[in-house]
Amino acid sequence: MSEKGAIIELLALLKLGRDTELNEQLEEMAVQDIAEAISQLDDESERLKLLMSLQQERRTDTFSYLPHSLQREMLVSLDDRDSRKILHELVPDDRTAFLENLDAEELEGFLKLLAPEDLKQSLKLLGYPEESIGRLMTPRFVSVRPQWTVARALDHIRHEANRGETVNFVFVTDNRGRLLDAVKLKDFILARQDAKVETLMDEEYYSVQASADREEAVQVIQHYDINTLAVTDKNGMMLGIVTVDDIMDVAEQETTEDFHKLGATGNVNISIREASPAFLYRKRIGWLMILVLVNLVSGLSIAMFEDAIEAVIALVFFLPLIIASSGNAGSQSATLMVRALAIGDVDTKDWLRLWGKEFSVALALGLTMGLAVSVIGAWRGGPDLAVQLAMVVGFAMLAVVIMGAMIGMLLPFLLQRFNMDPATASTPLITSVADVVGILIYFSIASAILSLPSPLS
Amino acid sequence: MSEKGAIIELLALLKLGRDTELNEQLEEMAVQDIAEAISQLDDESERLKLLMSLQQERRTDTFSYLPHSLQREMLVSLDDRDSRKILHELVPDDRTAFLENLDAEELEGFLKLLAPEDLKQSLKLLGYPEESIGRLMTPRFVSVRPQWTVARALDHIRHEANRGETVNFVFVTDNRGRLLDAVKLKDFILARQDAKVETLMDEEYYSVQASADREEAVQVIQHYDINTLAVTDKNGMMLGIVTVDDIMDVAEQETTEDFHKLGATGNVNISIREASPAFLYRKRIGWLMILVLVNLVSGLSIAMFEDAIEAVIALVFFLPLIIASSGNAGSQSATLMVRALAIGDVDTKDWLRLWGKEFSVALALGLTMGLAVSVIGAWRGGPDLAVQLAMVVGFAMLAVVIMGAMIGMLLPFLLQRFNMDPATASTPLITSVADVVGILIYFSIASAILSLPSPLS
Repeated sequence: MSEKGAIIELLALLKLGRDTELNEQLEEMAVQDIAEAISQLDDESERLKLLMSLQQERRTDTFSYLPHSLQREMLVSLDDRDSRKILHELVPDDRTAFLENLDAEELEGFLKLLAPEDLKQSLKLLGYPEESIGRLMTPRFVSVRPQWTVARALDHIRHEANRGETVNFVFVTDNRGRLLDAVKLKDFILARQDAKVETLMDEEYYSVQASADREEAVQVIQHYDINTLAVTDKNGMMLGIVTVDDIMDVAEQETTEDFHKLGATGNVNISIREASPAFLYRKRIGWLMILVLVNLVSGLSIAMFEDAIEAVIALVFFLPLIIASSGNAGSQSATLMVRALAIGDVDTKDWLRLWGKEFSVALALGLTMGLAVSVIGAWRGGPDLAVQLAMVVGFAMLAVVIMGAMIGMLLPFLLQRFNMDPATASTPLITSVADVVGILIYFSIASAILSLPSPLS
Repeated sequence: MSEKGAIIELLALLKLGRDTELNEQLEEMAVQDIAEAISQLDDESERLKLLMSLQQERRTDTFSYLPHSLQREMLVSLDDRDSRKILHELVPDDRTAFLENLDAEELEGFLKLLAPEDLKQSLKLLGYPEESIGRLMTPRFVSVRPQWTVARALDHIRHEANRGETVNFVFVTDNRGRLLDAVKLKDFILARQDAKVETLMDEEYYSVQASADREEAVQVIQHYDINTLAVTDKNGMMLGIVTVDDIMDVAEQETTEDFHKLGATGNVNISIREASPAFLYRKRIGWLMILVLVNLVSGLSIAMFEDAIEAVIALVFFLPLIIASSGNAGSQSATLMVRALAIGDVDTKDWLRLWGKEFSVALALGLTMGLAVSVIGAWRGGPDLAVQLAMVVGFAMLAVVIMGAMIGMLLPFLLQRFNMDPATASTPLITSVADVVGILIYFSIASAILSLPSPLS
């Protein structure tokens, strides 16, 4: 991989103003790497210079790999002629991706730069719901009719491929545009030239509706190992295609969303490098304040046992250990379940079987950890309280690990059951809920074994 | 999506013994869905019946989508003739994936069933390191020479495509097998029949080495939006290809690994449905015990301040709140950083800039939360201690949120810096470390403001 080296060389040539060598270097580099280089520049005029040094076609390709914030900045800085050209040449799905991130006023400004045909198309694509497949698709695909000969179809494919369309799959539609089949390009090459297209059809094809959630496109492409997926309206009319590279980007975004939810940050759907402190603050403060409320319940639970604590102050020594272990076991269970639900490894109907398994795992974990800490309990208890304190912390550990694991396992299932995202059962939430339960269990056991004053007695 | 409906219908027909309709249903279904149906059956003989009802070619395809544990079970149950056939027909990368999950004894047994040519190939692929690209690749690809005409190349492509090879990309190699270029199949169709292959070459191609980590293949395919990636040895000799569908599976596995690390479970690299309780116990107990040690340090920190606690027992009320908030802020930071590092959004060299930003975010979060809890502090303090306790919890909250966020942000960077996986900075680990720091800060501030006995004085 000399990709990083090429980027550094390019930036050096730019800084030194060696334009001839700069242009040579640009020609050798992939557009994705040039976009990467542009993103690394801090100076706007240098970014523009690099972009404008490119030939028109490579310029638009490079542009399509830039972050949306840079795309906006550049289109504003360029004169209208250059902006129009770039907007016109963007493939429709990249154009939609750019436009959908603008606020209303900016959107209006950019829409004015579009050619009438592009404008119509963009408005149509933007009309699909956010995060729907329609927003991802490109309406450019190659379609042939069943009654055509292979020779005629290949002529048509050649013509369309020249216009830059994706042709690994060729779609067979009827005269009204209804999708009938998807055939591999390879099959057209293998076939006899005078055979009819319908002889190549096997009716094995996969399609999704434009209004469906983009998650569905991810699942179909992953499940059936295909590169190109047909998109139709609800009547089966072919509208466009979604390709595997778009799907990989979506899958990455959705996974990032899951990570962020599990970490109890709001969904930070832009680059951390670009996010402003104010934006990050807004995304994070909500959950932190909710968790403060849960933690106050922990405080109230402790307050209930203040008399017991005053009687045996050594109990406080084990408090962080007991409640943290409950949260840790819960975090583990929640993480395993949230991820398994996300990739479809388990389903809500599996909960009972998994509950049984999780219980036996938690029992074994709790026994191991309870035994380990009871030794420390005996030591802290000193000659008078050795046995009692060993029992208190041992039993408490066993109980809180099992409870934590149960909470961590069941909460994601419950959320999924009520059509909420299981990842909302974030590890901080599980930890905080486990704290409350852990405190109540620990001091109840302590009060009972040590015959201490208790709110329950 | 009638995928689930089809599976249910298939299973119903199987249970009812309606074989004619069963076979019709099987013919209509995709192999991926048949594999899904087989996995859902609890009875081994029913699983075998379904698999053996399929035509030979579809049988092997279906087999390749089954979980490895079922694949092993079926090959053991089938007679050697059927097992041999399936093993022979599996594409080489699927065969490697099956073989690499066996223990030594089983592996020996299955290797005996392989045809000499397959055996040679499998041993070679298994010779690459675990998680390397060599283990993923298939040695089946189509290559042509630069001096051939397009017509001759297309003849060759047709012949190879008939044997089932992947042909979206055609690889140009020299006479010794060294990779020269990768050309889209579409370009061969567009070109004049009598043109030389070398006229189609643009030397824009991407390749990785077989011994490299499979993560590299994921990155190259994602970064350059390609479907097929060439794999070479260190001298540039073409060895095989890796396709985007394999890469999506790898990306999913690697992300699952990250999730599990972040949740402090060991890497559970098999389905949760299939994992035994003993396996899950082993994967989880290690981190839990390590965390117990960290939590004992929390206990020791509290013990240092026992006199202060005895003097003002109300301090314990805020203990879970203060330490949990520290951990929650830290979990948020760690989650954001671990994910940003994993997808390449940020790099270790960005740490200083991100540190500055994280500090200002944490300051704002800490101020908000400190203000909120100081009100509660004033209430708990009663008439005598209202101001003091408000100050204690307010300042402590501000300090622990900032410290927690700093720990959560810096630990992943430090780990990455020393070539460890940043996801090792799991949220339970961050929480536990933040506990220790939070306890020390809280009681130090309390001792100072309330003039309590302190180990520091």
